[in-house]
Amino acid sequence: MGRVVVDVMPKPEILDPQGKAVAGALPRLGFGQFASVRQGKRFELEVDGPVTEEILAAARAAGEQVLSNPVIEDVVAVYEDAVAQDAQA
Amino acid sequence: MGRVVVDVMPKPEILDPQGKAVAGALPRLGFGQFASVRQGKRFELEVDGPVTEEILAAARAAGEQVLSNPVIEDVVAVYEDAVAQDAQA
Repeated sequence: MGRVVVDVMPKPEILDPQGKAVAGALPRLGFGQFASVRQGKRFELEVDGPVTEEILAAARAAGEQVLSNPVIEDVVAVYEDAVAQDAQA
Repeated sequence: MGRVVVDVMPKPEILDPQGKAVAGALPRLGFGQFASVRQGKRFELEVDGPVTEEILAAARAAGEQVLSNPVIEDVVAVYEDAVAQDAQA
């Protein structure tokens, strides 16, 4: 069993109110190191077989067509998650 | 300027209705490869200086104390995002 991660983030030019809220809260809670925050989504897609190039291409297509809103979001990363190997052992 | 990514996912034993909804929609939309889906959050924290070990430790602490709900979520990854280097160039 394999796992593919698809990361979706708001486009840089799009206002991100969730991220702004987090960025405003962090200094009050003792984390003044961070100048800005953006919040996106992380999807973990499980496949029964191994993670092949075809699976990665399908995951990218699913990310662009289903998991993200292409008007306001970008698929920023698609990669195999090695952690799934541990669960198998 | 550097960027740290903090990934937060629902704990494995916690029901993830968003992920279930996505998993149900994917086969109908032509993506039958994926057996299950879980949806979490991805935070990008920008720092003015370089990403040091201290910054990564602070990002993990912020992830555990502010960005996630430790009752139902885990911080699954904290890492420097190399993409930030491109924006600087």
